[in-house]
Amino acid sequence: MIYLDNSATTYPKPLSVRRKMAQALEQFGANPGRGGFKMSLQTAQAVYDVRQKAASFFGAAGPECISFQPSCTQSLNIVIHSLKRGDHVLVTDLEHNAALRPLKAMEAHGVSFTVVPVTPGDNDATLDAFRHAMRENTRLLVCTQASNVFGIRVPVERLAALAHIYGAEICVDAAQSGGVIPIHAERDGIDYLCCAGHKGLYGPMGTGMLITKNGEKLESLIQGGTGTRALELDQPREMPEYLESGTQNVPGILALGAGMDFVRTNGEDMLREREMRHIRRVYEAFKNMPHVVLYTAMPDTMYFVPVLGFNVRGMQSEEVGEVLAKRNIAVRCGFHCAPLAHRKMGTDGETPGGAVRVSPGAFTTDRDITELIRTVYSLRAESAARIVE
Amino acid sequence: MIYLDNSATTYPKPLSVRRKMAQALEQFGANPGRGGFKMSLQTAQAVYDVRQKAASFFGAAGPECISFQPSCTQSLNIVIHSLKRGDHVLVTDLEHNAALRPLKAMEAHGVSFTVVPVTPGDNDATLDAFRHAMRENTRLLVCTQASNVFGIRVPVERLAALAHIYGAEICVDAAQSGGVIPIHAERDGIDYLCCAGHKGLYGPMGTGMLITKNGEKLESLIQGGTGTRALELDQPREMPEYLESGTQNVPGILALGAGMDFVRTNGEDMLREREMRHIRRVYEAFKNMPHVVLYTAMPDTMYFVPVLGFNVRGMQSEEVGEVLAKRNIAVRCGFHCAPLAHRKMGTDGETPGGAVRVSPGAFTTDRDITELIRTVYSLRAESAARIVE
Repeated sequence: MIYLDNSATTYPKPLSVRRKMAQALEQFGANPGRGGFKMSLQTAQAVYDVRQKAASFFGAAGPECISFQPSCTQSLNIVIHSLKRGDHVLVTDLEHNAALRPLKAMEAHGVSFTVVPVTPGDNDATLDAFRHAMRENTRLLVCTQASNVFGIRVPVERLAALAHIYGAEICVDAAQSGGVIPIHAERDGIDYLCCAGHKGLYGPMGTGMLITKNGEKLESLIQGGTGTRALELDQPREMPEYLESGTQNVPGILALGAGMDFVRTNGEDMLREREMRHIRRVYEAFKNMPHVVLYTAMPDTMYFVPVLGFNVRGMQSEEVGEVLAKRNIAVRCGFHCAPLAHRKMGTDGETPGGAVRVSPGAFTTDRDITELIRTVYSLRAESAARIVE
Repeated sequence: MIYLDNSATTYPKPLSVRRKMAQALEQFGANPGRGGFKMSLQTAQAVYDVRQKAASFFGAAGPECISFQPSCTQSLNIVIHSLKRGDHVLVTDLEHNAALRPLKAMEAHGVSFTVVPVTPGDNDATLDAFRHAMRENTRLLVCTQASNVFGIRVPVERLAALAHIYGAEICVDAAQSGGVIPIHAERDGIDYLCCAGHKGLYGPMGTGMLITKNGEKLESLIQGGTGTRALELDQPREMPEYLESGTQNVPGILALGAGMDFVRTNGEDMLREREMRHIRRVYEAFKNMPHVVLYTAMPDTMYFVPVLGFNVRGMQSEEVGEVLAKRNIAVRCGFHCAPLAHRKMGTDGETPGGAVRVSPGAFTTDRDITELIRTVYSLRAESAARIVE
């Protein structure tokens, strides 16, 4: 299989990640923070080590700022469900449903939000649009750091500064950028950093993180056993337990630690630039194919992550995906849970019905890319026939 | 290590579970329900197979009644956070903080709850207490099926019938009973069955399930990408996706499936009765030790699951745990996130500071139990010295 769906989840996982997961089940199999015997303490220590690793990886103020979550989606939900009646939110027009749907749900609780357009390749224009959209009651900006369909980057550091000028906070959806773009939460002024563990960090599915020093200011989305203050019925406010009720996904967390090691060892920049080369090669080839539609300028690191959305004229994205699947090339088609991004690009109609998304990973080879380009090229006759129809 | 903390999480995990987890990372590594290529479809099918297995295991109306959750705690939170202003809830005095803390948090939203005592060994008395506590606005009973400290069973089937007579529903916390006591959600009338995956079902930590045919009536605790109706900002109501936003814990879910197979193959009743024999042996030995305090009658299957709480006179439970830990015996001491259960038994003071909990599992041997009994026996002098002080 030629796997080009790394934006959905990276595959394969590094050997070190798979080994760590097996080791976790065998050697760190006790419930951490719940027992006083050796394996429980060792497991708690191993989880704490990953916390420290994540704090260092993402420039958090300390390990207590890292709360492990089952997904980036849950992290975003914790932040968004902490909003209060009357609060106003700004979001980009590139957001994933992981941010949009909780915001929509919060409308019933008196929260309003405004969608602000991102101008690809012009951060000043994006900044201006956000500045003009700010209201007196704007409390939060929810911004993906990179579109999960078109790879377009959002200048979250500058938006963070803007938010703070107006007394608002910023919540960054780093699902597509964690492990890809260097992030330093403290320096970049990111109040709430929501990460997926199973994408650019090469951990297993079922892992995520909410990184913040303001955890105690949030509402805990779920309450329960924390292994602390067991006699109190009120959820203890201390981080990170405050946001980590119930038994944690220990094998997932330890494997996520190995994933972060993998990224650090190989170098975030090295990994990304190799993937960017793949993406640029695809882009250049597609640019010369009249039957292929592209939606952005040539991707560069300043404005893009290595994710490319395209279509074949006259064909539905899913049809292209089927052709690719037959050649054993795995891409993701359709709407990618990003309705506004597709509306922005005009790809939300029945044809093309979204876009074909290519997202390389650490294990993508030049030959993989060659095969993709060849296969898409072979669709030119089919495309022409559809257009004549 | 002599591992007697299976109520916190079962250890070791069966070989088949560990193998399935490794296989999941290698062969089912694509994001299910998000792509149209072979591995994504195969992964989706593998997850669906576990859904079917769980539906059959727990007597659910169909696979769409199974929603995978990161923990039993999250399942309980989904149900409890769906309550409305003015709703009244009954809970037992054996509940875990996973139920009590969300209920406490819901007080701020106009939900009230009454704690009803369970009478160990007298289900009629328990029923009567619940009947008398019912109010006109009682909408929900939240009942653990078995105390996580003292192993006391709660007659949830009869409480379900009672709830339904009064037009209320029942939410059962099966953290300690799933895979231990046969449960048939449909037949037993359990409206909301909350399961941990990593205890009696022998799956990995980080897994749980909410089993219900009323999923669409609940509030979704989190909203996000479901891989369905991607262009709609409202969370799609269809189960199980409605309650499964974001990327799911695929390796955990598949391993949980292997865990359920393990329980089925060995026989739920066989596993439980072997553990009950261990517990009864411990109980009988402790009953003859004047320095040991027991809190229940001799455990039998009708009224107990194989979990035993005890103390050594004059000693704090944590001190006993430390002695056991030095002999490489793993138990859990303290309050077990169950404040009311300890208040009920009078173990919430500084001494004994909770209780020592013994919980055998499928791999517990007679020798393990002998060693536990011997070690606790050896504490008689220490206990006597403390009492004289």
